[in-house]
Amino acid sequence: MSPANVTINDVARAAGVSKSLVSLTLNARPGVASETRERILRTARELGWTPHPGARGLSTRRAYALGLVLRREPRTIEVDPFFASFIAGVETVLAERGNVLVLTVVPDRAAEERAYERLVADKRVDGFLLTDLLAADDRIPLISRLGSYAVSLGEPPGGSPFPVITRDYDAGIDDLVQHLVRLGHRRIAHVSGDERMLHGLRRRERFELAAAAAGITPVVVTTDFSPEQGAEATKALLETEDRPTAIVYGNDPMAIAGMGVAHERGLDLPAELSITGLDGSHIGSFVYPSLTTLDNDPAGWGTAAATALLRLVEDGEPGDVALPPARLVVRASTAPPSAG
Amino acid sequence: MSPANVTINDVARAAGVSKSLVSLTLNARPGVASETRERILRTARELGWTPHPGARGLSTRRAYALGLVLRREPRTIEVDPFFASFIAGVETVLAERGNVLVLTVVPDRAAEERAYERLVADKRVDGFLLTDLLAADDRIPLISRLGSYAVSLGEPPGGSPFPVITRDYDAGIDDLVQHLVRLGHRRIAHVSGDERMLHGLRRRERFELAAAAAGITPVVVTTDFSPEQGAEATKALLETEDRPTAIVYGNDPMAIAGMGVAHERGLDLPAELSITGLDGSHIGSFVYPSLTTLDNDPAGWGTAAATALLRLVEDGEPGDVALPPARLVVRASTAPPSAG
Repeated sequence: MSPANVTINDVARAAGVSKSLVSLTLNARPGVASETRERILRTARELGWTPHPGARGLSTRRAYALGLVLRREPRTIEVDPFFASFIAGVETVLAERGNVLVLTVVPDRAAEERAYERLVADKRVDGFLLTDLLAADDRIPLISRLGSYAVSLGEPPGGSPFPVITRDYDAGIDDLVQHLVRLGHRRIAHVSGDERMLHGLRRRERFELAAAAAGITPVVVTTDFSPEQGAEATKALLETEDRPTAIVYGNDPMAIAGMGVAHERGLDLPAELSITGLDGSHIGSFVYPSLTTLDNDPAGWGTAAATALLRLVEDGEPGDVALPPARLVVRASTAPPSAG
Repeated sequence: MSPANVTINDVARAAGVSKSLVSLTLNARPGVASETRERILRTARELGWTPHPGARGLSTRRAYALGLVLRREPRTIEVDPFFASFIAGVETVLAERGNVLVLTVVPDRAAEERAYERLVADKRVDGFLLTDLLAADDRIPLISRLGSYAVSLGEPPGGSPFPVITRDYDAGIDDLVQHLVRLGHRRIAHVSGDERMLHGLRRRERFELAAAAAGITPVVVTTDFSPEQGAEATKALLETEDRPTAIVYGNDPMAIAGMGVAHERGLDLPAELSITGLDGSHIGSFVYPSLTTLDNDPAGWGTAAATALLRLVEDGEPGDVALPPARLVVRASTAPPSAG
């Protein structure tokens, strides 16, 4: 063959390595063992391989980028305790492999669809991280139709041909409710989050099951997961006649806001009101009293999701990941209810 | 001219609009007035303009993407109260204009340089958002050399040919110190942040100036901006013989962690210890006692930076932006020191 016709397939065959290793090496991407890299470069030189100007992206068909399309009001990112840590986890994986994250926020379903279509058509990303799963979610069929890849945080309602990252919260929620019941609480309220979100809905349902198993019918107030609505819900709950002796919040920021309201009313925490979060945040261990919660590891979600998606993109290997189950973290914000 | 030769320059001339408006319209980007859009599309049809397959990116030379390269340990993103809100602000602007954000985290100076070079060479971004300015920072000359664009949050130490977004903190820090002095505090400590960061250094310097103006020599403890180190610094300060009656923290998460430590030691807040943050966070208004701080608007920084950078990229118009100065927000965490 003439040097002009030498392809990365030829180099791969001659060097006895996979095409993707050749592609990574010839594109100066990290992650290839130095010995292998040298063999590939030597073989490419011997065969007379030359890069085809401008065709680098096309020849490898890799964008070296993952996409994250958020259908949200951009400002909701500000109060989301999950977002920054999740991104940190994703970047831990991408940084090691010389990949980047393409992030875009869209206002509605139509813009979301256009964003996916355009990112795929422009070959800007190799696949998508799907967060914020909705009780009704149709991104999996969309991405399948576009011929791209995805990984989802949580099991999509209609199933998925792509890797799914899951984490069991059921046992943790059961433990949390039993912890309160054992302390002597019977009037337990739940300030739940946005129930259009699959995880908001599922956790409220599990909370009710766990409470029912203990013979308790809890009061549930639904919010949008924001500290504002967490504070409002707390005010409403504390004004009821049979006010709860314990409140379980759908996330830590709402619990911290709830503590603020209770402190302000002069309640002695935790004696007069036990408070718990969910989805343990970093700051939750620093407030007073330190917050009993279920732990979470948003960075772990990010690491697992990025790893699974890159494995699918690079090696065609789909693989689900079950993260360690949510675990009850008992700190200082829960105690037996004071008599009365 | 034959239709095959019609360029977007020809369409622009015939329609009497700028080349960039034609480019935006023919690439189906938002932001063009519907009347103008219609005239451009009509003119293009009349002239027989056809898209050159695969050349869309090349012909417009726009990536419709801005880059954010963070030189950090990825996990530091988790505890950064600025990051998520800043991204929210950036996305507010990008979402409106159909642009995306390309985010990458790099471990060191060498990887940082390679990231900028590659993102420019691959035409993945039209310019860069520069955050985390260092006391010694050489990204501006690098980006200039690469022929790309940038906008910086804060005035780079060596100046910049690109737009600079600034915000005055000096008056706010003066007000904060005077607020404490007027309440009667003389033993004021400062838990400052990472002083390799330009803003960490500048704020500590201004704090010392303001204290000196009031005849006070403050104790300063330097940290990395994390709540862990904020808590440690607080423990150390509370164990000193002449323990401070007021502590000014370099950010809100450290102040909240400091409150936790003080509460735990049984101190009555704010009577026995006044606490302030800096760079007001969302959660700071929900803790107890609610946090006196300087306000901040990370989303405003993001909006201003993305807007200025897109204006430079699209219209070649550089323009600095001075955000409204930092303002003292007095809440419940500061009070006159108790006698003794």
